Amino acid sequence: MDNSLERQFQQVRDSIDQVDSQLVELIAKRLELTSTVGELKAELNLPLYVPEREAELICKRRAQAFDANLSPELIEDVLRRIMRDSYANQSQTRAEATVSQHKSIVIVGGEGQLGQLFCRLFSSAGYSVQSIDKHDWGNKSGYLLNADLVMVAVPIRKTVDVIRQLPKLKSDCLLVDITSVKSEPLDTMLTVHSGPVIGLHPMFGPGIQHLAKQTVALCEGRGLEQSQWFVDQLINWGVNLTRVDAKEHDQLMAIIQVLRHFSTIAYGYHLQQENTNLEKVLDLSSPIYRLELIMVGRLFAQNADLYSDIIFSDKSNIPMVKRFIERLSEVMALLESQDKLAFTQLFDNVAEWFGEKSGQFLSESNQLLAKANDIKK
Amino acid sequence: MDNSLERQFQQVRDSIDQVDSQLVELIAKRLELTSTVGELKAELNLPLYVPEREAELICKRRAQAFDANLSPELIEDVLRRIMRDSYANQSQTRAEATVSQHKSIVIVGGEGQLGQLFCRLFSSAGYSVQSIDKHDWGNKSGYLLNADLVMVAVPIRKTVDVIRQLPKLKSDCLLVDITSVKSEPLDTMLTVHSGPVIGLHPMFGPGIQHLAKQTVALCEGRGLEQSQWFVDQLINWGVNLTRVDAKEHDQLMAIIQVLRHFSTIAYGYHLQQENTNLEKVLDLSSPIYRLELIMVGRLFAQNADLYSDIIFSDKSNIPMVKRFIERLSEVMALLESQDKLAFTQLFDNVAEWFGEKSGQFLSESNQLLAKANDIKK
Repeated sequence: MDNSLERQFQQVRDSIDQVDSQLVELIAKRLELTSTVGELKAELNLPLYVPEREAELICKRRAQAFDANLSPELIEDVLRRIMRDSYANQSQTRAEATVSQHKSIVIVGGEGQLGQLFCRLFSSAGYSVQSIDKHDWGNKSGYLLNADLVMVAVPIRKTVDVIRQLPKLKSDCLLVDITSVKSEPLDTMLTVHSGPVIGLHPMFGPGIQHLAKQTVALCEGRGLEQSQWFVDQLINWGVNLTRVDAKEHDQLMAIIQVLRHFSTIAYGYHLQQENTNLEKVLDLSSPIYRLELIMVGRLFAQNADLYSDIIFSDKSNIPMVKRFIERLSEVMALLESQDKLAFTQLFDNVAEWFGEKSGQFLSESNQLLAKANDIKK
Repeated sequence: MDNSLERQFQQVRDSIDQVDSQLVELIAKRLELTSTVGELKAELNLPLYVPEREAELICKRRAQAFDANLSPELIEDVLRRIMRDSYANQSQTRAEATVSQHKSIVIVGGEGQLGQLFCRLFSSAGYSVQSIDKHDWGNKSGYLLNADLVMVAVPIRKTVDVIRQLPKLKSDCLLVDITSVKSEPLDTMLTVHSGPVIGLHPMFGPGIQHLAKQTVALCEGRGLEQSQWFVDQLINWGVNLTRVDAKEHDQLMAIIQVLRHFSTIAYGYHLQQENTNLEKVLDLSSPIYRLELIMVGRLFAQNADLYSDIIFSDKSNIPMVKRFIERLSEVMALLESQDKLAFTQLFDNVAEWFGEKSGQFLSESNQLLAKANDIKK
C-alpha cells in the first residue's frame, strides 16, 4: 500500500517536472515575441512602456485566472516578473528610437556609473555619444563645441565647479545635469549658458535593468520647448517624469535622502558599537526585520563618499535632522516615565495623519514580505 | 509600409496574448499537481517543505533556462512565486498530518489573530481543537482538564497573569506560550506546571499564507522528549525552528523589536510634525525610499497596543535605546563641525564590521527593489 503510494508520489513529481520544463519553454517563447515587439516599437517610434497596454494585458489574465479558480495575484506577479525582463531586453535591443538620433551628445563624467548608463542608453538609441572625464578635461572645448546636448554627470561635490568650467556652448545646445541636489546646479547652469537648461535627478541607482517606470525628477530651467526631443526620449525609454520646483525638490530630498542616509548610518554604527551578533539576529529575524537589516547593511557595501556628499552637501538640512533626534528623545521621555497612555495617543495621532495611506502601505509591503520569504533558501 | 508594420505589430501582440493564456493554463495544471502532492505527503506523513526537493527542482530549471539563453534568475523567481501558492494550498488541504492527531488541544486566547491561525492549522491537521477566550474564562477548568496541549496566545501584557490563573493541568500536558518575550513567561510556566513546557515566539504576523520557511524561536523549558510530537508537527508544517536561550532571545529582541518599533514610531512622528507632504514625497521617491516609507507607514495601520506592549514590556531595554539616540547625536556632531573625514572613517569602520554581509544584503535587496518597481502601476 505504502509502496504504491510512494510510486504515485514519484509519478506526480515527474509530472510537475514536465510542467516546469514546458513553463520554461513558454517563457522563452514569450521573450522572443516581446523582443520582436521591441523592434517594431522602435520602428514605429512607440514608447517602451505603455501603461494602458500593460494594465489591459494583466486585467485579461487576472480574469482568466479568476474563472479558472486561480489566484489573480499569482498570475499578475508572474506576468510582471516576466515583463521586467522584457523591458530590459527591449531597452537593449531597440535602436534608432527617436527621430532626433542625429543629435550629438556629450556626457561630462561619462566614466562614472550613472554616466556610463546614459552613454549606453543614448548609444543604443542611435545617437552619436561622446564621454569626457577628468583625464581629458583639458580638451573640453574640442568635445563640447558642437554638442546638441551636454549632460553633467559628475559627483555632487564637483557639479557646480564643473559647470562653471564649461566652455561656451552652441546657443541652442541643451545643458542638463543629473545631480541629487537641484537649486545650486540649476542656477549655475542658467548663469553660464544662455540656451535651454534642464535639471534632472534620476531617482534610481546605476544597477537598474531598464528605465521603464523609474522616476526622474525634472526641474525646468529655460527653453523647455527646445528640449522637447530630449524629454520625448526619456518618455520613450519608459521614464516616469515628475516635474518639481528646484527649491521644493531640495526640501523633499532632505527627508528622502539626507535624513534617511543619516539615520541609517547611525543605526549601523549603533549595531557595531553594541557588538550585535549579526548571525543570531538574522537567524531570529522576522521577514520585516530581515528586510530592515538588509536595507541598512546594503548601504555599507557602497562608497562612503556617495553618502557623505549628500549628507554634507547643504548645511541648511542640519536643523531638520536635529529635530528628528529631539523627537526620538521626546518619545524616550514617555518610555522612561512609563507613560503608555501618552505613547498610545502619539501613535494614534500619527496614524490619523497617515490616513488611508497606512492601509495601502500595509498591503503593498505584505506583497514584498511574501517575496522576501519566497527567496529564503 | 507603416500600415503593414502596424498589422505585424498587432499580430505579435495577439501571439503574446495566446502565450499568456497558455501560461495561465499551465500554472493551473501545476497547482493541481501540487495539490495531489500535498495529499500524498499527508498520507505518507512527509513534511510540507523539503528544502532539498525545492533546491533540486529549481536547479534543474535554472540549468534549462541557461541552456535556452534565458535568465536563470527569471525562472527561479517565477517558480518560487508559484511555489508560494502551492505551499499555501497544501497547508490548507492536508488533513491527518501527523500520527498524533488524536491529541486534544486548547488555545487560550483563540480569538486573537495568531490564536485563530493556530486553531485553523491544528484543525486542518486533524486535531481536536478548542478555543477559550475572556468571556469563557470562568469555565477554564472544564476546558483545560483533559488537554494534551495548552497554548497560551494572549496579548503580551496579559501572558504572565493568564499563566498564573491556569488550573492544574494533566501531568503530561504540554504547556506552550507564543509571546514576543520569553524569560518571564517561561519561568512562570515552569512554576505553575510540572509537566513538559516550551516557550515559542513565532517571528511572523497573522497575515502569512503558510508556515513554510517561517521562523519560530523555541526556548526549551522542560521535557522536550515528551514534546517531540508537537515539534514534529511544526516541522511538518514547514516551520524553520530556531532554538535559543530565553534570556538571549530577549536581548536580541531588544534590537529586533523594541529598538525597531521605537525608532519607526518616532520617525512617523517626525514626518507628521514636519508636516511632510506625503503625496509629493511618494511622487519623488526612489524605490528604496518608497520601500522605507511603506515599512514605516504599515505600522500605523495596526493597533497601537501591539507596539506599546512590546516597547513597554521591559524597562531594562531603555538604556540600549538611549545609547542609540546618543549615537545619532555623535554622528550629528560630525555633521555640525563639517568633519567629513571623521564621518567617512566612521562609515568605513561600520562597513568593515558588516564584512561580506553588506554585499550579500546589497544583492538580496536589489531583488526586492526590482520587485517593488514591477508592482508599480
